[in-house]
Amino acid sequence: MGQNITRKILGAHLVEGQMTPGSEISIRIDQTLTQDATGTMAYLAFENFGLKKVKTELSVSYVDHNTLQDGFENADDHEYLKTVAQKFGIYFSRPGNGICHQVHSERFAVPGKTLLGSDSHTPSSGALGMIAIGAGGMSVALAMAGQPFPLVMPQVINVRLTGSLMPGAAAKDVILELLRRMTVKGGVGKVIEYSGPGVLTLGIPERRTITNMGAELGLTTSLFPSDRITYEFMKNQGRENDWVELQADEDVAYDEQIELNLSEIEPLIAKPHLPDQVVKVRDLKDTSVQQVFIGSCTNSSYKDLAKAAFILNGKSVHPDVSLSIAPGSRQVFEMIARDGILQKLISSGARILESCCGPCIGAGQSPPSGGVSLRTSNRNFVGRSGTKDAQVFLASPEVAAASALTGRITDPRDLSGLDMAGLHQIQETNQVIVDDRMILAPPETGEHIEVRRGPNIKPMPLGKELTQEIKGEVLLKTGDHITTDDIMPAGTAILSLRSNIPAISEYVFSKMDRGFAQRAKEKNGGLIVAGENYGQGSSREHAALGPLYLGIKAVLAKSFARIHHDNLINYGILPLRFKNNTDYDRILPGDVLRIADVRQQVEKGSFLVENVTQGVTFEAIATLSERQKELILDGGQLNFIKKRTKA
Amino acid sequence: MGQNITRKILGAHLVEGQMTPGSEISIRIDQTLTQDATGTMAYLAFENFGLKKVKTELSVSYVDHNTLQDGFENADDHEYLKTVAQKFGIYFSRPGNGICHQVHSERFAVPGKTLLGSDSHTPSSGALGMIAIGAGGMSVALAMAGQPFPLVMPQVINVRLTGSLMPGAAAKDVILELLRRMTVKGGVGKVIEYSGPGVLTLGIPERRTITNMGAELGLTTSLFPSDRITYEFMKNQGRENDWVELQADEDVAYDEQIELNLSEIEPLIAKPHLPDQVVKVRDLKDTSVQQVFIGSCTNSSYKDLAKAAFILNGKSVHPDVSLSIAPGSRQVFEMIARDGILQKLISSGARILESCCGPCIGAGQSPPSGGVSLRTSNRNFVGRSGTKDAQVFLASPEVAAASALTGRITDPRDLSGLDMAGLHQIQETNQVIVDDRMILAPPETGEHIEVRRGPNIKPMPLGKELTQEIKGEVLLKTGDHITTDDIMPAGTAILSLRSNIPAISEYVFSKMDRGFAQRAKEKNGGLIVAGENYGQGSSREHAALGPLYLGIKAVLAKSFARIHHDNLINYGILPLRFKNNTDYDRILPGDVLRIADVRQQVEKGSFLVENVTQGVTFEAIATLSERQKELILDGGQLNFIKKRTKA
Repeated sequence: MGQNITRKILGAHLVEGQMTPGSEISIRIDQTLTQDATGTMAYLAFENFGLKKVKTELSVSYVDHNTLQDGFENADDHEYLKTVAQKFGIYFSRPGNGICHQVHSERFAVPGKTLLGSDSHTPSSGALGMIAIGAGGMSVALAMAGQPFPLVMPQVINVRLTGSLMPGAAAKDVILELLRRMTVKGGVGKVIEYSGPGVLTLGIPERRTITNMGAELGLTTSLFPSDRITYEFMKNQGRENDWVELQADEDVAYDEQIELNLSEIEPLIAKPHLPDQVVKVRDLKDTSVQQVFIGSCTNSSYKDLAKAAFILNGKSVHPDVSLSIAPGSRQVFEMIARDGILQKLISSGARILESCCGPCIGAGQSPPSGGVSLRTSNRNFVGRSGTKDAQVFLASPEVAAASALTGRITDPRDLSGLDMAGLHQIQETNQVIVDDRMILAPPETGEHIEVRRGPNIKPMPLGKELTQEIKGEVLLKTGDHITTDDIMPAGTAILSLRSNIPAISEYVFSKMDRGFAQRAKEKNGGLIVAGENYGQGSSREHAALGPLYLGIKAVLAKSFARIHHDNLINYGILPLRFKNNTDYDRILPGDVLRIADVRQQVEKGSFLVENVTQGVTFEAIATLSERQKELILDGGQLNFIKKRTKA
Repeated sequence: MGQNITRKILGAHLVEGQMTPGSEISIRIDQTLTQDATGTMAYLAFENFGLKKVKTELSVSYVDHNTLQDGFENADDHEYLKTVAQKFGIYFSRPGNGICHQVHSERFAVPGKTLLGSDSHTPSSGALGMIAIGAGGMSVALAMAGQPFPLVMPQVINVRLTGSLMPGAAAKDVILELLRRMTVKGGVGKVIEYSGPGVLTLGIPERRTITNMGAELGLTTSLFPSDRITYEFMKNQGRENDWVELQADEDVAYDEQIELNLSEIEPLIAKPHLPDQVVKVRDLKDTSVQQVFIGSCTNSSYKDLAKAAFILNGKSVHPDVSLSIAPGSRQVFEMIARDGILQKLISSGARILESCCGPCIGAGQSPPSGGVSLRTSNRNFVGRSGTKDAQVFLASPEVAAASALTGRITDPRDLSGLDMAGLHQIQETNQVIVDDRMILAPPETGEHIEVRRGPNIKPMPLGKELTQEIKGEVLLKTGDHITTDDIMPAGTAILSLRSNIPAISEYVFSKMDRGFAQRAKEKNGGLIVAGENYGQGSSREHAALGPLYLGIKAVLAKSFARIHHDNLINYGILPLRFKNNTDYDRILPGDVLRIADVRQQVEKGSFLVENVTQGVTFEAIATLSERQKELILDGGQLNFIKKRTKA
């Protein structure tokens, strides 16, 4: 029986394990990427390894998350990232050069290769037929050191696309439809592989929108075949020599099958506060809008902005709407400037922002109190925009542009006078401006490079070897779907502290529970109790490092999001699951929990947890590979490595 | 004997007083402008007056200072400013439409009129032959209420320009040369009026650069004649009907005369940390640069950016330099997009920022620790960039662009291969895009408008009627040239609190003395002792309101900057000067000072100050008009008005 693309690539990179869904394998990583908000920690970790150069085929360090620079901290981070990249053989994409996923797919993604990135939207490059996975910075550091990357072998879902998008519908609506069907945890432990005749109707930017937001399904990754459209895209980028064809075999079988007829997809929109709260745009047509943002790694391609400009052309943003637009990369920015698209956007009243993540992660353009913000980005978690009571909706650039004109949520098909056929014909440009001058190549050897460390850049804290007893108070009991934004908020003030764990730890859970950090310190640490899908969202390991610094020993949840589960283990925090979820209901904040003989129980993977306060005992489990058990026992990756290096 | 332009305009607007230099006059104000950082307080004050509509010919509210929106506060401020403008008949220039002074000169400035603006760089519009003066928000609120604006009749200095600028030199160098000669306090109590054949060699953008930075000389304002160049500029803006010719009479006499031969001016640069630390660019040619910023109300015109693009064209920003560029207005932004200039800037690696003040006021793009930042803006005060130990230099766009390429401070004449003649020929475009759709005109009546107030917008605090005794500790003793940035720092975090005096007061002197606010509260207020030119720099009345909120009763200084002196009086803080500056030397921080019979001494204008701690008494004076005495006795403008309204 034939193979799917996922198994072909994983098989070609397999180092350890059996490719049976659910069992741990490890794979060779060809490429890595980091961004500034997670990159500093990744490189601080890498510096501990004693290597002279990265061992990957290609590693790229991007600066895209916090480029506002409202204080010396950002600029110092950029200097650190630049010099550490030069020292260790890493390409450095300068601030303003664009969003990592947009730039990586333009300039570096290669079909059939593996990419590990310290950003949860790394799967974007799956648009070009590569296995691209998001992970914590420590995992990326290990990959740069040449270590194979461990992951649970995923199930492979085939989404077979037929038909073609109707005028007014967009790639964004394809992934929103999948989110509507599968929900934000429907993809956990899975990969989506797209196939079918509908694939050929989608360009690379559209495929990238779809693979990008696969992260919101909880997928390990998602990918498209590498076909003639991939070839054309890479040829336009001057990279046709890197192209290889990749298709699933004819007689392939998948673990699961989904049929999706593109022709039936209408313009969709995700309501607050999760990306799976999807309804038809027309269902919300009377909702007034105060802010619109077109950009982010999901929707900031040339074609996205050309479509927005087509809709906005000659018209003016509604007086009650602030429209901001951030091109995804300097390449896109320059091309829309060249082709008159940018002038149309400016003329319409759009506020043009630097090529970066910006509003998506709350780095600027926070909406007004209680305001409705319609965004083309990928997440609408509570408070992520920087405004706690904002109502954030997610939709396509077409819907965003139409709504910016009317001041209400608007299906572009309902915008009077819009030439729908003209809109539908807009294509990505073939006249690509290739110019990598803002990507600094590393020197042959970096021995002479002095790494610059500003005063806000502090060493990474270390975990401690696991003790025989864990005893502590339940410092916080949360509900389901707690995001890494909840655990460690973004926003410029906090993003500036990403290189300074002692300082940033003050903000752990600060948007949910202002007293958390103080309480954790007073109680000398403790435990967190959580519901389903704890730690969904971004890959930021600060959501583990912050709690670690505050003395959190274990998190007891109904279930975990994949990357955060790895991050907890990487830093030596024990991730426990309830054996019976009813035990979750019984625990109260403030209860003292006690686990005896912890080290032996880690070996077994099952735990007896005593609720000292209530005088009851219940069972918990930890799904840990042998490698992960060692990490937990040693108190995290750095301790594990140091122990092995000494030995 | 004939009249100069200054006296002609002041005379035509005179309401009270004699136009004798040094005596107080009051003048009718035709136009006002505010920006967001000072505007909220101006409108909060205006709302107290019980009027339905502003009484000026034109009032405009701009949003340009803090457009980063890193939290709900900015966006809420923008909503407040928009709705309060609609309510009271004020034009509202939306965020992204540009910097107030750039936009005002493009769209609203009229020769022969008076303009009062709550921004110290309001004199920019003097480029079009108007009397444009910076003031605190309270003063602007009073002008909107139809009150005449009181000022000390200035001396008029004539700067007679001959010759024409050499290739590589720019308008920036003209004003830097004047700063070199006159220093930052050389213009106090004076107006500069430009004349001579050199005037006709300077376009409106160049004249605006010069009048803009007249603020750094401490001038009341500065202005150019209104001539055929003014006419052409206004005609291109579709405003030729508003043009009138304005020239000094032939036989005019001035209070002071300065000759300046433009042909002799070389590219100049101001060193840290004051704009009068001026040397030749070539004197610093080995200084390496980490950051370059082209923009601000001083240098962000079409011509400025066209020149920068000419220098950068086809080349790439130095790997160690971050270059950011912010066009001065949406008009400029759209025109440089139309003409291919923007593409050249992007291609060179420049980071394009929204049309706003941005880096100039520390709202983003803070340099790295200890970094050298070369900027085209107007002030290089310590810490204003957001990085306390940054070294900020000020120069022309030509010098900035050349230095961005080389990574060192570079005179454009020394840039190899640069076509100096081509650079010299670049002109402002005549094909101006006039489009005011981002300037919201107010409705005929605003009675139906509901003003939106976010939770961060707090009422303005009131001063208290002056007590008979002032007794308190010297909470801080400063040196000379304390800026309003020192008293009330800018930067995004603090700017977000401009509508919330209780919150922002925590930051008073925070960059100089972290414990100040706490100490002031513990001591129940006190006094500040300062050197020369206390309160120079911006017009922000928060530098008075913050101290007022902390209980500061009086400031005892060697001398005051004009706007800050007015702001102190407007809020009922007593501004005292040492009669003998040697008494300054004797006072120590922590000394308790006592002034008895204060109200009587205010009437006299001279004070006996007892240093209780040291057991000595010394003399102080306050230069107060009769009107100002009443304000001080009543505890500031709002109390004064309320008392009169009741009576």
